[in-house]
Amino acid sequence: MEFRIEKDTMGEVKVPADKLWGAQTERSRNNFKIGAPATMPLEIVYGFAYLKKAAAYTNCELGALPIEKRELISQVCDEILEGKHDDQFPLVIWQTGSGTQSNMNVNEVIANRAHQLAGKTIGEGEKTLQPNDDVNKSQSSNDTFPTGMHIAAYKKIIETTIPGITKLRDTLKKKSEDFKNVVKIGRTHFMDATPLTIGQEFSGYVSQLDHGLKALENTLPHLAELALGGTAVGTGLNTPKGYAKRVSEFIAQFTGLPFITAENKFEALAAHDAFVETHGALKQLAVSLNKIGNDIRMLASGPRSGIGELIIPANEPGSSIMPGKVNPTQCEALTMVCAQVMGNDVAINVGGMQGHFELNVFKPVMAANLLQSAQLIGDACVSFDTHCAQGIEPNHKRITELLNSSLMLVTALNTKIGYYKAAEIANTAHQNGTTLKEEAIALGHVTEQEFEDWVKPEDMVGSLK
Amino acid sequence: MEFRIEKDTMGEVKVPADKLWGAQTERSRNNFKIGAPATMPLEIVYGFAYLKKAAAYTNCELGALPIEKRELISQVCDEILEGKHDDQFPLVIWQTGSGTQSNMNVNEVIANRAHQLAGKTIGEGEKTLQPNDDVNKSQSSNDTFPTGMHIAAYKKIIETTIPGITKLRDTLKKKSEDFKNVVKIGRTHFMDATPLTIGQEFSGYVSQLDHGLKALENTLPHLAELALGGTAVGTGLNTPKGYAKRVSEFIAQFTGLPFITAENKFEALAAHDAFVETHGALKQLAVSLNKIGNDIRMLASGPRSGIGELIIPANEPGSSIMPGKVNPTQCEALTMVCAQVMGNDVAINVGGMQGHFELNVFKPVMAANLLQSAQLIGDACVSFDTHCAQGIEPNHKRITELLNSSLMLVTALNTKIGYYKAAEIANTAHQNGTTLKEEAIALGHVTEQEFEDWVKPEDMVGSLK
Amino acid sequence: MEFRIEKDTMGEVKVPADKLWGAQTERSRNNFKIGAPATMPLEIVYGFAYLKKAAAYTNCELGALPIEKRELISQVCDEILEGKHDDQFPLVIWQTGSGTQSNMNVNEVIANRAHQLAGKTIGEGEKTLQPNDDVNKSQSSNDTFPTGMHIAAYKKIIETTIPGITKLRDTLKKKSEDFKNVVKIGRTHFMDATPLTIGQEFSGYVSQLDHGLKALENTLPHLAELALGGTAVGTGLNTPKGYAKRVSEFIAQFTGLPFITAENKFEALAAHDAFVETHGALKQLAVSLNKIGNDIRMLASGPRSGIGELIIPANEPGSSIMPGKVNPTQCEALTMVCAQVMGNDVAINVGGMQGHFELNVFKPVMAANLLQSAQLIGDACVSFDTHCAQGIEPNHKRITELLNSSLMLVTALNTKIGYYKAAEIANTAHQNGTTLKEEAIALGHVTEQEFEDWVKPEDMVGSLK
Amino acid sequence: MEFRIEKDTMGEVKVPADKLWGAQTERSRNNFKIGAPATMPLEIVYGFAYLKKAAAYTNCELGALPIEKRELISQVCDEILEGKHDDQFPLVIWQTGSGTQSNMNVNEVIANRAHQLAGKTIGEGEKTLQPNDDVNKSQSSNDTFPTGMHIAAYKKIIETTIPGITKLRDTLKKKSEDFKNVVKIGRTHFMDATPLTIGQEFSGYVSQLDHGLKALENTLPHLAELALGGTAVGTGLNTPKGYAKRVSEFIAQFTGLPFITAENKFEALAAHDAFVETHGALKQLAVSLNKIGNDIRMLASGPRSGIGELIIPANEPGSSIMPGKVNPTQCEALTMVCAQVMGNDVAINVGGMQGHFELNVFKPVMAANLLQSAQLIGDACVSFDTHCAQGIEPNHKRITELLNSSLMLVTALNTKIGYYKAAEIANTAHQNGTTLKEEAIALGHVTEQEFEDWVKPEDMVGSLK
Repeated sequence: MEFRIEKDTMGEVKVPADKLWGAQTERSRNNFKIGAPATMPLEIVYGFAYLKKAAAYTNCELGALPIEKRELISQVCDEILEGKHDDQFPLVIWQTGSGTQSNMNVNEVIANRAHQLAGKTIGEGEKTLQPNDDVNKSQSSNDTFPTGMHIAAYKKIIETTIPGITKLRDTLKKKSEDFKNVVKIGRTHFMDATPLTIGQEFSGYVSQLDHGLKALENTLPHLAELALGGTAVGTGLNTPKGYAKRVSEFIAQFTGLPFITAENKFEALAAHDAFVETHGALKQLAVSLNKIGNDIRMLASGPRSGIGELIIPANEPGSSIMPGKVNPTQCEALTMVCAQVMGNDVAINVGGMQGHFELNVFKPVMAANLLQSAQLIGDACVSFDTHCAQGIEPNHKRITELLNSSLMLVTALNTKIGYYKAAEIANTAHQNGTTLKEEAIALGHVTEQEFEDWVKPEDMVGSLK
Repeated sequence: MEFRIEKDTMGEVKVPADKLWGAQTERSRNNFKIGAPATMPLEIVYGFAYLKKAAAYTNCELGALPIEKRELISQVCDEILEGKHDDQFPLVIWQTGSGTQSNMNVNEVIANRAHQLAGKTIGEGEKTLQPNDDVNKSQSSNDTFPTGMHIAAYKKIIETTIPGITKLRDTLKKKSEDFKNVVKIGRTHFMDATPLTIGQEFSGYVSQLDHGLKALENTLPHLAELALGGTAVGTGLNTPKGYAKRVSEFIAQFTGLPFITAENKFEALAAHDAFVETHGALKQLAVSLNKIGNDIRMLASGPRSGIGELIIPANEPGSSIMPGKVNPTQCEALTMVCAQVMGNDVAINVGGMQGHFELNVFKPVMAANLLQSAQLIGDACVSFDTHCAQGIEPNHKRITELLNSSLMLVTALNTKIGYYKAAEIANTAHQNGTTLKEEAIALGHVTEQEFEDWVKPEDMVGSLK
Repeated sequence: MEFRIEKDTMGEVKVPADKLWGAQTERSRNNFKIGAPATMPLEIVYGFAYLKKAAAYTNCELGALPIEKRELISQVCDEILEGKHDDQFPLVIWQTGSGTQSNMNVNEVIANRAHQLAGKTIGEGEKTLQPNDDVNKSQSSNDTFPTGMHIAAYKKIIETTIPGITKLRDTLKKKSEDFKNVVKIGRTHFMDATPLTIGQEFSGYVSQLDHGLKALENTLPHLAELALGGTAVGTGLNTPKGYAKRVSEFIAQFTGLPFITAENKFEALAAHDAFVETHGALKQLAVSLNKIGNDIRMLASGPRSGIGELIIPANEPGSSIMPGKVNPTQCEALTMVCAQVMGNDVAINVGGMQGHFELNVFKPVMAANLLQSAQLIGDACVSFDTHCAQGIEPNHKRITELLNSSLMLVTALNTKIGYYKAAEIANTAHQNGTTLKEEAIALGHVTEQEFEDWVKPEDMVGSLK
Repeated sequence: MEFRIEKDTMGEVKVPADKLWGAQTERSRNNFKIGAPATMPLEIVYGFAYLKKAAAYTNCELGALPIEKRELISQVCDEILEGKHDDQFPLVIWQTGSGTQSNMNVNEVIANRAHQLAGKTIGEGEKTLQPNDDVNKSQSSNDTFPTGMHIAAYKKIIETTIPGITKLRDTLKKKSEDFKNVVKIGRTHFMDATPLTIGQEFSGYVSQLDHGLKALENTLPHLAELALGGTAVGTGLNTPKGYAKRVSEFIAQFTGLPFITAENKFEALAAHDAFVETHGALKQLAVSLNKIGNDIRMLASGPRSGIGELIIPANEPGSSIMPGKVNPTQCEALTMVCAQVMGNDVAINVGGMQGHFELNVFKPVMAANLLQSAQLIGDACVSFDTHCAQGIEPNHKRITELLNSSLMLVTALNTKIGYYKAAEIANTAHQNGTTLKEEAIALGHVTEQEFEDWVKPEDMVGSLK
């Protein structure tokens, strides 16, 4: 491999000649060989591209950067956002906890690529742009990295998570309406209970997701607050007047998202409670989705020795040894994602609680975990929706069979003959393996006509929406 | 000990003669000897007292219960709320996951105490009230227990958690203003950084708590939704028309809190995402408080071999062996509470994710954990406020000494001479153990006058609010 | 209330006249009003009683304490261990993180009670014993509290946790043998699979608990290491020569448990990885028990609309509204305990990871969580064993019915006709709602005789132990 | 792109013509678009390669597979292990929870590659090997996937985790010896305490890692147990006699690791407590490493306004805005890894606790999390060792300065003049900003000579190892 020499304040470093990055990126590559390379999420690199461009525009507008430099920076940022330099960001999550090295990676790539755009050869001649003085002007890693994190997270949630959940929510809502008259046995404690409709059952899932989406949306204002303009410790040292507000406006404009400058920059650097907050909502959604996924696979269990009230699509052979087996694989993928999100929440908490003084240095691990959760939930909802939820159908035959044999229909008699006599009927039928009606009459608590008038499953499901 | 005989649908049970509870409570006492007795939080019992009274009022209003029975139920509920029967609720958290046994405990105590109030002897004569048919009328454990949970949690957060956090937040806000001109060295990565004021540092803590309080308040609408009226599986079987809405209005009236009937009762029984959501916000606050407690103890570390920038109150001898030692004990209590809340969050998640079909049967464990977190955070904030935060003072001598020796003041030169030359000055001063000014001049990068004009800590702290 | 004046190095404090505690306990009571009073587990107080007695014996033997003082200390410790002074320890978990105040609580109670035993009145005359100089001789809170924690935890695990788990394990083992010939359908992915016996199914549970017990036992050597003798920072300052080893021998003798002096006292004060380790094993057991509890309630689900293969005891009426309902309440208590233990594990991790320099100051929260988990697991296993596991019986009729209708018996044909043809048979029978035999013959893949020879559930359960 | 047609029991599927995989892999690729592609760890694929080869050898030896087929399977497995087919495994973690699709991916790649090796063209002519009947012979996904998991995890821990930790442990041990005479102030509660040596301080870290390594090794026997031979539900259906034991012997031989057949196959499929157990030990090590990383960065804090007792290597410029800043970046990478491992532990617990009946279907998520933790801990220890620990040096000047000013040296006087008088000296010196000696003499508690004889830091560090 060929190399060129790059320099930083600590001296010279050999860098692969064909790479756009510089000395500090190369140092980090060598100093942090932890896990697979290039694990720093590209979404954060793109977040940086937005903010570097916005900083260049703001610096220029406020007289701190010439327009030619703004244009060069802006042009490289656009290239990055087009995905043209994805292979120029080789660093890992497990670097410095401020993400300084990834900030410098972006600074170096922009400076070197600008040098090329200016018609020069990297490593030769005076630098067209200085990574620290020009590209990083009015910035610090300490405010850029959290800004990049927020941009990346907000975009992911708006573009992937919420649409994915909403898609599944809408399907479940439709199923809830389609099956609103399908009366079936209810189950509490895994035991037979009074009846309800599948529509009602599914409306509970919809309500969970609606509440979860609301909870997630409640966290977005905190996530929309950007640290940029705080620089090193939150004071905004070395920024021109008006910078913080203006740079956020540019970011909002470039991303089309409602970003604002954080009212308090000291919090924005030293704590990432916004990430704790947003991931808390993702975790709540994982709790909901786990319930939904579990219910559906149990209601679809069988085909002959389970509950079997729902029929779900058969997407692939289920077993390498048992011929003809079909499994609720989408439920499994979904609930595995939920398990991961539960874990990610703790990783984020542990990082979030350990900010010290003016800086939290668990930024990359917090960012990576939130981005993973946001992606996985969104994707898993779409996958579950497409390959499972949309195809769910009731097994009417099975549902009717189970409903009619249920002992808990006796509950309808409570208001007629009291809980104690009703219990006597149910217990006797259970012991004798008989029907409620038989025993209700035999015990003399009701007449046949009364039983038929009073114990009607379809009248027991209420009119609650 | 003397006993009397009580009966339920499974037969006779011997109950201590002097106790108000009945057969099902006694069965639970004997069947669940897990941990210390009576761990079911009294707050939940009080939540039940509110809802039983409200149910009696609603049933009466809707023609389902005679006014005499309403009065008896109501009178006992008031006695319970006055704390007169605290020793009549001996059950543990680790019982049936629907809390049925605690619901029956309340039903039995009300029925037996009403018998006394009616001038009769418990265990003799026809029951004045039937626990299931009268006290539990139009109810199921499945909707009463979550209703009791929500009442207890909402009250705790309104009465203990939010006031406690707010008290601490207000003190930190005042300190932030008091110390707004005290310039000190900043620290990032535990390393010396550019200066800021103590006021700015504390404003970050205030901002964290403000965001946390907002996040907590965002969860209250979900928590205000009551399951009552859903009865066994959410359909509202065996409730009179209009019951669900009306009973919530009575609960709102009796508690003075904005409770409403849950729009979807199926979710309200089968999932406790509202608890996951609210505890998520408590957990976020624990993350914030851990940061604050850690910062303050580290800033107050010493007295001679630490940072020593803050002076905190000395409340007790700190060591049984080291004479004269004073420790940041309030910080320790606070951060231990935070550790507990982190753990409680996982317990609640694990319970929340395992609801099955029409009922989540992790209700008691979820309720107990949330109530503990809400209480501990509120109390710990008050304790920390009273015995630590209010007494915090700057150690001006130490602050000035550290500020003036800092090498990171060099950052002010970036915009004058560029990052590289500034770095050269700092590195040289660090190696030689000299001052920035000496080396800046010696290296020829600035004149003495320039250095004095440009490197002023008080000008480096910005004007950010 | 009457008071007396007690003094410590910070001055005078009013203490309730009838209490044995002194100034520092009273300060702590007033300074830490966090949660309910007296939450510091009594088991830790008893741990202190053992170690204070052992320290007195060691100090005396090594010439540092007169025998009269040893006798007084020893006598009070014995009284404490008899439970005579349980109401003299009013402090909370949420105090100083070193537990100094609980150490002083014990020192003060011993000193004051010894004054009484010496025939004097508390608060009058020269102190018979000095809390710091005599009772705490050769000790620091920093080595006593972790020693008390280890004693308490080790005893709890030996006396409650392991016996409880073993009791349940033995019942499951017996059931596994009792039901070793009951062939039933297997289930994977909640879907019908090839058959096995109930005995085999239960043997898996036994194996889980056996591995869990082994894992728990593996942690005991670390837990047996005692910090005592390290004093303030681990160096053993102010201890007589030979003290650390000898005091551990006395503790081992008094408790009858194999305690030894920690090889490295610096770890023993600054980190509580032994607690992280032991609780890790408790958490593993919770994972196992959650699986077992879930399986049993699902296998017992019904009675008419679930799986219904197992019959579990009916211990109490299951519902306040549904007459005759019986629920798997012991499974619910058990799995709620598991949820709590999952949470406690995180609380312990968060505490354990934050030890700083020479001392971890999350001792009380770590101790309280481990003791709770150890107690709850032990108790819940006994409760589950007594009220559920011992009474489990197979529902032979149901088991046979489900087994015979299973499509997965087709797997036996793989080795005869290949996976593809076998799948064709199963799929066709599933689509047509017919039997495997019918379709196998209709498709021409086997003769009736072959089918009967090859597809025998009882031959499909192997001879694996 | 060109395609060929592949078939499975559900019909035809178009597969990219240049890929070795078949119908079921392609279905999974399309049905599970969750997160980035190909996230299933290659280590698991390699685990499969070992076990497929071992199964072929065993089947052949037991007469169930011709030697030609064994040779073909074996040859492809060797190619996979050489990394020649890494791009043939495109599936994600978030698939079916049994990992069936990854098992089939391996089966299909082996079958198609064997077809090539046999000189034929994929998709043409009769298949040389059947994926299910030949490559998967005597196997099920249900026993192969956990076997692959165990092989992958065991190898990772032996080859990466333990060597990495041991490397760091050995460096810390050496430092402990190098600095065994460097007396410094101790710190408890972040406050000045009695002295110890750096050697002693570091010996605590060594002891933590020693205990952690022991804990990790304790888990290996459980991890060495292989499920293979259990097939679909643990009964070993469709395996030849003696298969389970023999196949484990082959795996042990091929890997050089002490694998054995699991004594109980029902546990081995239905629960992954072994993973919970092993990851519990990894999590304990993360707790330890977090403490170590935190201590070192705090002891190295400064350079002028922190503790500054240790000097750590400067590996890269620390700040993009603050010139000359050096940060403890290796500590940050290490503690971020610890945060991740804490989270992964919960993900594994949540997966582990939800096994149902005969199969746990959280296998891929559990495996991926454990492998990540094992890799990250190993790598981070090496990185931290190489770039930080090896270069740690004491700052003797600073250490002496802090030691001599410490007030806690007064503790040495406890045994001479009692705790109360010693406290008076320390308190007075603290208030007056004077030295202990001055006040000790001024208060008349000791003479100058006595002070000099009794208060010697180097005598206060004990002789504990």
